[in-house]
Amino acid sequence: MSFNLKDIQNPDFLRGLDLEELQMLADDIRLFLIDSISKTGGHLSSNLGVVELTIALHYVFDFKKDKILFDVGHQSYTHKILTGRAKYFDTLRKFYGLSGFQKRKESPYDVFEAGHSSTSLSAALGMAVARDLKKEDYNIVPVIGDGALLSGMALEALNNIGYEKKKIIIIFNDNDMSISRNVGAISKGFSNLRNSKQYNDLKVDIKGFLKKNEKYGSSIIESISNFKKAIKDQVVDSGIFKEFNLDYHGPVDGHNLKDLIRALEVAKDEDEPCVVHVVTKKGKGYEPAEEDFSGHWHGVGPFDIETAKPLVEIPKNYKSYSQVVADMVEHLMYSDDNIVAITPAMMAGSKLENIFAHFPDRSFDCGIAEEHAVTFAAGLALNGMRPFVSIYSSFLQRAYDQVNHDVCRMDLPVVFGIDRAGLVGDDGETHHGIFDISFLRSLPNIILAQGKDDKEIEDLIFTAFNQKHPFALRYPRGTSLYNGDTSSANEIKIGSWDYLLRHDNPDVVILSYGSDLLEIENIININNYNYDLINCRFFKPIDEAMIDEIVELNKTVYIYEGDMLIGGLSDAIGEYLVKTNQLLNMHVYAIDDIYPQQGTTNQIKEELKIDIKTFMKEIEDKLNA
Amino acid sequence: MSFNLKDIQNPDFLRGLDLEELQMLADDIRLFLIDSISKTGGHLSSNLGVVELTIALHYVFDFKKDKILFDVGHQSYTHKILTGRAKYFDTLRKFYGLSGFQKRKESPYDVFEAGHSSTSLSAALGMAVARDLKKEDYNIVPVIGDGALLSGMALEALNNIGYEKKKIIIIFNDNDMSISRNVGAISKGFSNLRNSKQYNDLKVDIKGFLKKNEKYGSSIIESISNFKKAIKDQVVDSGIFKEFNLDYHGPVDGHNLKDLIRALEVAKDEDEPCVVHVVTKKGKGYEPAEEDFSGHWHGVGPFDIETAKPLVEIPKNYKSYSQVVADMVEHLMYSDDNIVAITPAMMAGSKLENIFAHFPDRSFDCGIAEEHAVTFAAGLALNGMRPFVSIYSSFLQRAYDQVNHDVCRMDLPVVFGIDRAGLVGDDGETHHGIFDISFLRSLPNIILAQGKDDKEIEDLIFTAFNQKHPFALRYPRGTSLYNGDTSSANEIKIGSWDYLLRHDNPDVVILSYGSDLLEIENIININNYNYDLINCRFFKPIDEAMIDEIVELNKTVYIYEGDMLIGGLSDAIGEYLVKTNQLLNMHVYAIDDIYPQQGTTNQIKEELKIDIKTFMKEIEDKLNA
Repeated sequence: MSFNLKDIQNPDFLRGLDLEELQMLADDIRLFLIDSISKTGGHLSSNLGVVELTIALHYVFDFKKDKILFDVGHQSYTHKILTGRAKYFDTLRKFYGLSGFQKRKESPYDVFEAGHSSTSLSAALGMAVARDLKKEDYNIVPVIGDGALLSGMALEALNNIGYEKKKIIIIFNDNDMSISRNVGAISKGFSNLRNSKQYNDLKVDIKGFLKKNEKYGSSIIESISNFKKAIKDQVVDSGIFKEFNLDYHGPVDGHNLKDLIRALEVAKDEDEPCVVHVVTKKGKGYEPAEEDFSGHWHGVGPFDIETAKPLVEIPKNYKSYSQVVADMVEHLMYSDDNIVAITPAMMAGSKLENIFAHFPDRSFDCGIAEEHAVTFAAGLALNGMRPFVSIYSSFLQRAYDQVNHDVCRMDLPVVFGIDRAGLVGDDGETHHGIFDISFLRSLPNIILAQGKDDKEIEDLIFTAFNQKHPFALRYPRGTSLYNGDTSSANEIKIGSWDYLLRHDNPDVVILSYGSDLLEIENIININNYNYDLINCRFFKPIDEAMIDEIVELNKTVYIYEGDMLIGGLSDAIGEYLVKTNQLLNMHVYAIDDIYPQQGTTNQIKEELKIDIKTFMKEIEDKLNA
Repeated sequence: MSFNLKDIQNPDFLRGLDLEELQMLADDIRLFLIDSISKTGGHLSSNLGVVELTIALHYVFDFKKDKILFDVGHQSYTHKILTGRAKYFDTLRKFYGLSGFQKRKESPYDVFEAGHSSTSLSAALGMAVARDLKKEDYNIVPVIGDGALLSGMALEALNNIGYEKKKIIIIFNDNDMSISRNVGAISKGFSNLRNSKQYNDLKVDIKGFLKKNEKYGSSIIESISNFKKAIKDQVVDSGIFKEFNLDYHGPVDGHNLKDLIRALEVAKDEDEPCVVHVVTKKGKGYEPAEEDFSGHWHGVGPFDIETAKPLVEIPKNYKSYSQVVADMVEHLMYSDDNIVAITPAMMAGSKLENIFAHFPDRSFDCGIAEEHAVTFAAGLALNGMRPFVSIYSSFLQRAYDQVNHDVCRMDLPVVFGIDRAGLVGDDGETHHGIFDISFLRSLPNIILAQGKDDKEIEDLIFTAFNQKHPFALRYPRGTSLYNGDTSSANEIKIGSWDYLLRHDNPDVVILSYGSDLLEIENIININNYNYDLINCRFFKPIDEAMIDEIVELNKTVYIYEGDMLIGGLSDAIGEYLVKTNQLLNMHVYAIDDIYPQQGTTNQIKEELKIDIKTFMKEIEDKLNA
């Protein structure tokens, strides 16, 4: 028997299947996922890990009325297949295609959305309180991984859930590896828990039971209550969950449908919030992913299934911006013993592997704990160290108060590497790093910069460690031809902008920053435009003398920003103009008050009418008008 | 014997005192605190709770080299007295006076600063890592309360501390009450822990021991190790701390100096991170504060010691802005069953007592858990409720990502009551609510408003619940003559500004918001100035039609803002002008890129040269120039 996954309309058919058929379905889904993701790219390991779990959840619960909340959401692919979306998988994470996360507009089975981790428990409690106030009756089932569970806000939620005692069935998806390696004291406890019992000593013949109760109904719930005591008796130690006043079931083998279904039935029968501890194997069924401990197979581009090699290799001499930054920091670490590197669970994503390998005592993975990571850095700085905090722009949002209250207020020399700044592409609206200029610029003491290319990025890192204030360097996702040289980095005057193109009597002056400058420069050069082009490499402080010069020139100024308009570069310029009582004719292209969707950076910009071609064409049109 | 506390230069003298003398000192300090705070106001309960604990800490440790980190810092008054600052207590929390928190510039004994809770553990770990990398040798002693310990970032830190295993001595100051009532599942565990053992079964004669070892030195450390096993054997259950892989000592009676000193000596001898569980009584020694369960005595103004009555009563017919908001929300709750109220541990501060009393099922105190509180609200909204999240502006900083990723991105109808917006006065730089306009304005979908007076605040709350987007209403600390009427509230057109004064041919146009408008209006009226005055009650969206009118008028515009200049109202106006290619001669008065210090709002504004008198005078001067 084999399933045509693209014909699935909804998960109702599951309840007509026996255990053997459910396992065949799991196998088919796994093959489909590997095949499909090998073509489109996407989150592989986490999805391969929860195939049986997701089937069991849809078997036991009815998510037309019950509510499933995937924490982060990148592990929801099987859920998407079972709810009628297999046919869209060739559009996964593409422009106007299937989202890589749960999305409410995609399906009535998606009642929640995320992208950032550790939000599902708080939302689940909110939903449960609403349900009980409205005297409605359904189950709320958040599915959360071990990495996400140890983030502060998830622990806050557990504390509140154990107090409020609303019925929530928390599926704790424990794969002993968040995105890369696991960290933290509690995860050791999980490991003890995991090893405390054998999976296979469950005596009840679930298969026979299911045969007798093919129709899902209240009769099952009654019968099942006999299992409850049997399973509970096995519980010797429920670890941290006991402290949170939560009932605990498990551990359950996450790849054994029989055990999964039984444990979920028991949990469904609970009156109080409870945790079902499910042990899964990330990457299950695809050997290279099963054996991955670096996080490489967490999110992948298209790859060859046979050889496990990426279909698109980074060309020789190309480097990702993350790698450029990491290499420069590593270079400085050799000569400055005070530099330490910190990441909140993004060692692989931010290319810190070499730093961790070569400086094990001076590199720290704090887990998904952005708040702690930033104040940890503040403590290091208070005692004379020079911390480098590598953090994705959209995740730095989690630590806004710590950057403000702990680092900037005390004016501590912490260097932030803001990775994935700007539009990120296929992860979509939760992951675009487009807010950081807006939320950081109003913080006193901070220096905020972005380099246009490898060389300038290296220079800015060098500069950051040569001064004593908070310094944030933002850099985008992506790669470029590497022209840098870590050993020849130069200091850049803080706050200085740089003319890339300068003419005696330019038609207009263009201001921009980051790698967009190179594309603009290219178009100007090809077309022999008589435009000045300025690299606004500092958002704070800005180059006031250069603005005075620009005002003096008395030309129309065009500002191109790849981030949120509100609070961005043009606001910084505007503030200075107001302060000095100067006027300037400015046109600004930036993201105007919208959460941009997924797609390539260019597709998104084109849709927002802020792609560079449109920008350059409109300048030309206005000049010719 | 009695101590002249103002003569204390440093804590070295403590080691010459015997237990009886130490207790006398504690009694003297307690009287001094009550007397001093009754005159200046300040944090009373928490400081009375840690008198013996702080003495014991300074007795056992040498904070010239060891480092003490008070979490939040408002409980550091005894520490200030012992480190030579009693003489400054009449300036407590005043302009250029003694800070109510630890402040590095005040004393070499203050190596850390906070104001927001739950940062001390992360900073302590950073300090410990730095110490060990530099091969230095000293103790790091964070002191953290039970409320703060349960906040997400403190739990993240515990998880990392138990993993990194650097020596840190965590003083867990457990008073079974964070700021107001205690919440959360774990706090029940603390209660079990607290009751699990008797304090007084310690057999060792600590007094005799101390007499024999008056000089603090390594000999003590050796001798003390005998105690270690004795105390460890008493540990039956260390609750949550075991899960974090941390050694646990306690519970210790926080008002018994003998037990405290012994437990701290034992902890000092540890090689690994450990927790000393100290049970204290908030308000100890002042009966009204001991018996307070509402949090009233947490932070107080001047009061009469005898009667416990405030010296300055809120005048009749006056209401705090917090109360105006809470009363209006409560009024709406009677007719709309879907409205629920949420606070992260600020029930008393935000005047939510009536809501909690009258709607116990629809009001939620999440503890010091701002992140969870906001996403909890998102979950409620996803299931059709209308959550009202009451939160101080400076604490909302903790939930920036949740407001962005969970509420605004999903465009959910959560109403935020941003309490303590603007300068807050005596709490100083960590508490000023001056960043929220800057960090919220760049979020799509949000509506951000501020009313000028009670009536308009009521109207805006009414408006907020009559629409379906995220709506944030900011309001300041303080009170005003109450002229509102909850039952006659009107809807205000979203984004509409309002002329308070309008002339045919005004000399200038003044734009401002909030209660500052009333002061400006008053000065204009008294002086018969020919100025227009506009109430910019929405920061987002703004009143574009009115800006067009202002541009049309072709007058100089003066903008008065009580918050950060960067990202504030004038930026909003500037963005619209750029977009519509209009120019306007603007002068802006706002907080320019600095963390303002403590003092009255007026003192702070005067120092920054943005007080309203200066503002009005400069307009006049320029007109006359």
